[in-house]
Amino acid sequence: MRQDEAQGAGTTFADFVAAMVWADIAAQTHEAKRSILNFFATALGSAYDPAVSAALRTLAPFSGAATSTIIGRPERLDAMGASFVNAISANLLDFDDTHLDTIIHPAAPVAAPVLALAQARGFSGQAVLTAFILGVEIECRIGNAVSPGHYARGWHITSTCGVFGAAAACAKLLGLPANQISNAIGIAASQSAGIVENLPSAAKNVSVGNAARNGLFAALLAAEGYSASPRAIEGPLGWASAMGDEPNLARLTGGLGESWEIAKNTYKPYPAGIVFHAVIDACFHLRVKLNQRFDDIASITVRGSALLLARGDRSVRNGRDARVSIHHCAACALLLGTAGVTEFSEATVFRPDIVALREKVRAELDASLPDGATRVTIQLASGETLSEIVMAAKGSLADPLSDRDIEAKLRDCARLGGTDWDIDRIVDDVWRLDTLADVSSLMGSHG
Amino acid sequence: MRQDEAQGAGTTFADFVAAMVWADIAAQTHEAKRSILNFFATALGSAYDPAVSAALRTLAPFSGAATSTIIGRPERLDAMGASFVNAISANLLDFDDTHLDTIIHPAAPVAAPVLALAQARGFSGQAVLTAFILGVEIECRIGNAVSPGHYARGWHITSTCGVFGAAAACAKLLGLPANQISNAIGIAASQSAGIVENLPSAAKNVSVGNAARNGLFAALLAAEGYSASPRAIEGPLGWASAMGDEPNLARLTGGLGESWEIAKNTYKPYPAGIVFHAVIDACFHLRVKLNQRFDDIASITVRGSALLLARGDRSVRNGRDARVSIHHCAACALLLGTAGVTEFSEATVFRPDIVALREKVRAELDASLPDGATRVTIQLASGETLSEIVMAAKGSLADPLSDRDIEAKLRDCARLGGTDWDIDRIVDDVWRLDTLADVSSLMGSHG
Repeated sequence: MRQDEAQGAGTTFADFVAAMVWADIAAQTHEAKRSILNFFATALGSAYDPAVSAALRTLAPFSGAATSTIIGRPERLDAMGASFVNAISANLLDFDDTHLDTIIHPAAPVAAPVLALAQARGFSGQAVLTAFILGVEIECRIGNAVSPGHYARGWHITSTCGVFGAAAACAKLLGLPANQISNAIGIAASQSAGIVENLPSAAKNVSVGNAARNGLFAALLAAEGYSASPRAIEGPLGWASAMGDEPNLARLTGGLGESWEIAKNTYKPYPAGIVFHAVIDACFHLRVKLNQRFDDIASITVRGSALLLARGDRSVRNGRDARVSIHHCAACALLLGTAGVTEFSEATVFRPDIVALREKVRAELDASLPDGATRVTIQLASGETLSEIVMAAKGSLADPLSDRDIEAKLRDCARLGGTDWDIDRIVDDVWRLDTLADVSSLMGSHG
Repeated sequence: MRQDEAQGAGTTFADFVAAMVWADIAAQTHEAKRSILNFFATALGSAYDPAVSAALRTLAPFSGAATSTIIGRPERLDAMGASFVNAISANLLDFDDTHLDTIIHPAAPVAAPVLALAQARGFSGQAVLTAFILGVEIECRIGNAVSPGHYARGWHITSTCGVFGAAAACAKLLGLPANQISNAIGIAASQSAGIVENLPSAAKNVSVGNAARNGLFAALLAAEGYSASPRAIEGPLGWASAMGDEPNLARLTGGLGESWEIAKNTYKPYPAGIVFHAVIDACFHLRVKLNQRFDDIASITVRGSALLLARGDRSVRNGRDARVSIHHCAACALLLGTAGVTEFSEATVFRPDIVALREKVRAELDASLPDGATRVTIQLASGETLSEIVMAAKGSLADPLSDRDIEAKLRDCARLGGTDWDIDRIVDDVWRLDTLADVSSLMGSHG
């Protein structure tokens, strides 16, 4: 599909979203299921986080008929409230999926409202998958068109672009005609918000939750006849310009339906910043070579690009620091041979053996290494040197998690999250989502 | 109160808001009542507008216990829903109040959630006035600090700054401590949205309504322990920077409590763009001089600054165009001697005599005239010339509406809006708001 120069991007998107049927997107559904499985993993893992519980307490008095489940819990809210809370739990630890070109976490703002709305209205699994794939497409294309300047300027791109994806997906799920889908996308532009300055605080959750909730709201308003500018995204006083960008129109709408953004989605094996994943992998390899000689370690040197050092060379005072610490990632992986949610909890962060090993880690620039790669070298007291290079971390597009890896991640998260949901059924239901007449069992409604 | 260089603007604002008591703001309450009276005028005038009804239909299934009135109507929603709908009706025609330094319409995003929350929780009239004045203060100071670049870049400033005012006002009304007020303001920064490109569409209403609704939400989340960056406004990856501005810190927090933004508020006598008000006033004067000789008019020349011409020299196809048309404002005022809501309705816009007179109006640049001023000249077929200069329009700070003018505006709007509310009681209740134990009768709850 070509961008018609005479029409707005919102119209082009809407025509595309309206036209797509199951057969057009069937080839993308396996990746969509992987993304939704990973969405459930992280949502279940944080189901009882205090930030999730506080959001639920805040919204409960402002809920209409409680149609939609809070994932992993017994409570329900209306579809707007459940969209907000489930997007928060899915994104809370930044352990959700990553669209590497933009660093958008695509699923949280899109899957949360699609599932909440589908549960409320009884939509089928095929309708859910179709809406989800199209929402991710719009979300990530808008992100592509303004990256990397948008995030660098201070915009939390998962929030600011997520609302477009949520709006497009919910408009599709509601079966709106193209002109109303265009209006939903345009209304989303007037709701796009979220700043990087707030990322280390709970205010981050608010913009992610709002992306989900307000995207659904945009679709519902469009269905009631609310309109918007067809040039809300790229117009002279529109979203991209106000946010400080000149959007790359070719990346915005070029080749719609020919390539798919969902195919570029990745899933983290470790709940740490994505640039630290290669460090963890290298340390897993080194752990085998080390063969329990932990007491002989004199020093550990982690080398990588400026990006690795910029994001990871800092002190560790809590779990959040640990998730973006080169030192902690290396120490954990070497000493424990694992790097799951437990290894970034405060119980592990302050273990004396972990603290002692972190202090032996140094980070050094190696400009010859590309972003995302690392070389880790252990100097032993004996004089022996062990070294590993990892060019593509586990979970990257070059070395993706297998379906079974994502299932295992879900089971691990669910166990730590303290949910009593039937995990086997969640896993089964996601893999057979295209055959489900509705999403009630997937959303924890025990028949 | 001085800006402490070491602390964030949000903290400075919060300390100020938390400390203020009735005695500190009592001198501002008369202007606050005028603003609230004007808020009711415009909300009542648009109570049954299709955009208001559509928003109400959309939100009704997503409302908790219906505690809060939709102004001018029998329906209620929860406080978040009512905040959204009442902010829309108050702002729909841009006939609400204007803070001239920023072109913010201060009341809609602040009064709507304050009144909805006060009705839900039984707060007093003094608490409402205190919260409203402080909310307008924060809203307009943030607007001052980023004007005029912010609006020019495409940000709908009533929406983007309104959410801060709503958050601060609701946090004050809830009696939150300073640290939670700071968090509410910081959370608002992650919800600030709304673009100028969407102003000619219903999507404008969404950002105005969201400012009200999400500001209340920010305060409720802060009360549940949600945090935010104390530098969410002015930090390096914060709101102002992301939005493309370097905020003027002196205008942001300098002289807090010494000058008051509510004192700079103005109220429109005519539901037209504020730059056209002088044109209408001049034509009212000319109408007297003309003494019914309408058929003798050869031409009408309206002269003003580039601002007047930029905003008003356009064709008239509907009521919205008429409100920003030099030609229509001049024709109406001359021929009909009035310029209320009726005169900008489509029934008047397409009257043959009005259309004919509009065609005789020409606009010309006169760079010697300041913004907001005009010289209107009528050339008669007889050769006679009539001319009027207006330097400060009625409704401006130099020639403000009287209290009785605002009452009359409210009665006129209410009549046209089709409400069956008891207007005498609304007027009485606003003037005695500081003595009301609660706002139930003001919000239409007939004992």
